[in-house]
Amino acid sequence: MTSHKQIGVFLYDVNMLLLSRLFTKTSKESAADAGSINADLLTRAGFIHKTMAGVYSFLPLGLKVLRKIETIIREEMDALGAHELLLSALSPKEVWEQTGRWEGFDALFKVPAHSSSSQATKNEYGLNPTHEEVVTPLVKHFVQSHKDLPFGCYQIQTKFRNEPRAKSGLLRGREFGMKDLYSFHTDQTSLDQYYERVAEAYRQIFKRLELADAMYYTTATGGTFSPFSHEFQVLLPQGEDTIYVNEEAEKKGNRIAVNKEIYKGEKGFREEHAAEAANIFKLGTRFSDPFKLQFANQKGELHPILMGCYGMGTTRLLGICAEFFADTSGLIWPASIAPFQYHIIPIARSPEDDTFQKALAIAKKKKDCIVDDRLDLSVGQRLADADLMGLPTRIVISPKTLEKNSMEVKDRRTVTLTMQPL
Amino acid sequence: MTSHKQIGVFLYDVNMLLLSRLFTKTSKESAADAGSINADLLTRAGFIHKTMAGVYSFLPLGLKVLRKIETIIREEMDALGAHELLLSALSPKEVWEQTGRWEGFDALFKVPAHSSSSQATKNEYGLNPTHEEVVTPLVKHFVQSHKDLPFGCYQIQTKFRNEPRAKSGLLRGREFGMKDLYSFHTDQTSLDQYYERVAEAYRQIFKRLELADAMYYTTATGGTFSPFSHEFQVLLPQGEDTIYVNEEAEKKGNRIAVNKEIYKGEKGFREEHAAEAANIFKLGTRFSDPFKLQFANQKGELHPILMGCYGMGTTRLLGICAEFFADTSGLIWPASIAPFQYHIIPIARSPEDDTFQKALAIAKKKKDCIVDDRLDLSVGQRLADADLMGLPTRIVISPKTLEKNSMEVKDRRTVTLTMQPL
Repeated sequence: MTSHKQIGVFLYDVNMLLLSRLFTKTSKESAADAGSINADLLTRAGFIHKTMAGVYSFLPLGLKVLRKIETIIREEMDALGAHELLLSALSPKEVWEQTGRWEGFDALFKVPAHSSSSQATKNEYGLNPTHEEVVTPLVKHFVQSHKDLPFGCYQIQTKFRNEPRAKSGLLRGREFGMKDLYSFHTDQTSLDQYYERVAEAYRQIFKRLELADAMYYTTATGGTFSPFSHEFQVLLPQGEDTIYVNEEAEKKGNRIAVNKEIYKGEKGFREEHAAEAANIFKLGTRFSDPFKLQFANQKGELHPILMGCYGMGTTRLLGICAEFFADTSGLIWPASIAPFQYHIIPIARSPEDDTFQKALAIAKKKKDCIVDDRLDLSVGQRLADADLMGLPTRIVISPKTLEKNSMEVKDRRTVTLTMQPL
Repeated sequence: MTSHKQIGVFLYDVNMLLLSRLFTKTSKESAADAGSINADLLTRAGFIHKTMAGVYSFLPLGLKVLRKIETIIREEMDALGAHELLLSALSPKEVWEQTGRWEGFDALFKVPAHSSSSQATKNEYGLNPTHEEVVTPLVKHFVQSHKDLPFGCYQIQTKFRNEPRAKSGLLRGREFGMKDLYSFHTDQTSLDQYYERVAEAYRQIFKRLELADAMYYTTATGGTFSPFSHEFQVLLPQGEDTIYVNEEAEKKGNRIAVNKEIYKGEKGFREEHAAEAANIFKLGTRFSDPFKLQFANQKGELHPILMGCYGMGTTRLLGICAEFFADTSGLIWPASIAPFQYHIIPIARSPEDDTFQKALAIAKKKKDCIVDDRLDLSVGQRLADADLMGLPTRIVISPKTLEKNSMEVKDRRTVTLTMQPL
């Protein structure tokens, strides 16, 4: 016990986690979300916990992955020159009435509030499923001139949707993390250019998540005010969306598709199931009109500002990665978002054993490690847990490997075992 | 324009912000929250924007301060060995009914949900103002043995309260950021020891925020299940709380007080106005009892787990710091949470001027700078904005200072001006 406490500080010094100190545990039970691969795996591995249907808490390991996904997205948004802010989760009813979405947006949670005595009607707030109604009046407060344009601002925040049936684990929730970027322009050319730059930044994000080869840039409906929008769809057998992949383009290395909702039976397309990880949208003046968000041009004439919006689900991407990279033994994290890089298992009877001490020394040297110090568990259980939790590299130190002054190294994805010198 | 775009990347490389690129602006208008010093200053300086009463959005500069406050808190929580997680914002009605707080907690937002067709009654969710009802069942899922105890877990998250009258800016909101830590124990001694360790970690946080000298460890009511709780009260003329400072203890360097709610007119106390920045609470079995959160001792006998909870307002601390450190010219940030360290103002007519180029060179060297490149504004306006925004150090580069190969350096807090070599 004493030695554990002494080395507990390593958690912060060298980013090492002793598994015995983690209050969450892996579980053999299948998760309550029958049918959702991501929720089942992430729950069994101790990454998430279901609070209720469509609502999850992120446990220490799950939160680490989520933060890494957020950091990748943040870096690419910052590289665009977009400014990060944090919009409120609550909003007044009036802004939703101004855009006609208080009644028109089915999934909007409406929150009854304490009513002030002077009001006859009950006060209600929106619990935001999206933030056009918040960001547009906010920008109007600051931006009046063409000189202020173009610019983009984004946030990474929790969103809420009143889903009648929440299923699919993290792929469709009542509460979920999202990055939403909004851009503001004087003219269509500027909007079009920014839109392409964001699409490119998104491709970079999918590349860093190692999802690029499974991602299709998918044309979808643009609603009532834009001919098209684009979705970033990741192939998943259990994905909720059906897309049609353009096979001619694919042969040339161009992964594009159309969503079923606009597919008209054209030939040369292959049907696939996919999960929407992100979508981008030219809003035009859909929101600047109701809020009278305008700019003065060089002659001082007022014109509506054109807007774009660019969403990307952070918790949904976590679910997609969990489901996409898994095998029958458990999760397989890409190095870029793995909670830790190394999962070190000493085969020892006590913390005083050479194997245990060697494991700590390796962890200290390598950094970014989980050390499974749960010596009361069977070796089989500990090896199975390593597979389930899915860190990129597993290292086993046993008396046998020590004899050869080596360690057994397993690549989780390729399932290859090698002996490497200590 | 070209030179601006070229140097735009400095924003990420050397943490430099060109003020012309920031879409938010300072404002001379007093904020809508008449009477709240923090909301007024933070709004005028372009750090926050009011969405509605008691609900604010954090603009780029405000978000930077908030993230720095969160990082300080996170580091001290991690140093305690507590595990960070992220609990859900929504919760099922049932968990609140189990603790008797669905009806008993006035400020709980109750969110109507889509009702499934099989249910006669309308479905409702809680929008969490605090998380005992979420964390206790979660921990019960993982912790059964005395070997798992003690431990602590915390989150930094948005909370919601259905306040009848939201006022005081960030000091009392309907939506606010909070760090909440929960601890779990086999016995009272363990809880008592952990409580003291958290109090010490909190003192360290106030020290890093430079609020230690204004903070009083204040005894307050413990509700129906604990004799006392403790609040970390910061002296503020407009603070909502009244505390009685123990003057005898104060002479010995021990800043302790009692809250008005338990003050019985004892002598040797001085009345002060203060704002509660944090509170800690021994919950005992208040929440483990209704959820039957128990542990098996070494004999296998089941006993209720004892709990502590430890809150600290992140957005409230931002408001307190804004209000506490301000002077008549504006905000004054402690270096530990300032959005940037240096506010550099070149007195120039064009970006080609020596003063402008020198300002950029200094920014590149010093890093962590705002450069006010808004050459179309008057010098007076730009100097006033620097005071209002409150970075620790202002640097002015003018043709006159350049003649002497020097720069004018102003310490924002002491308002001292010095000439320093370039």
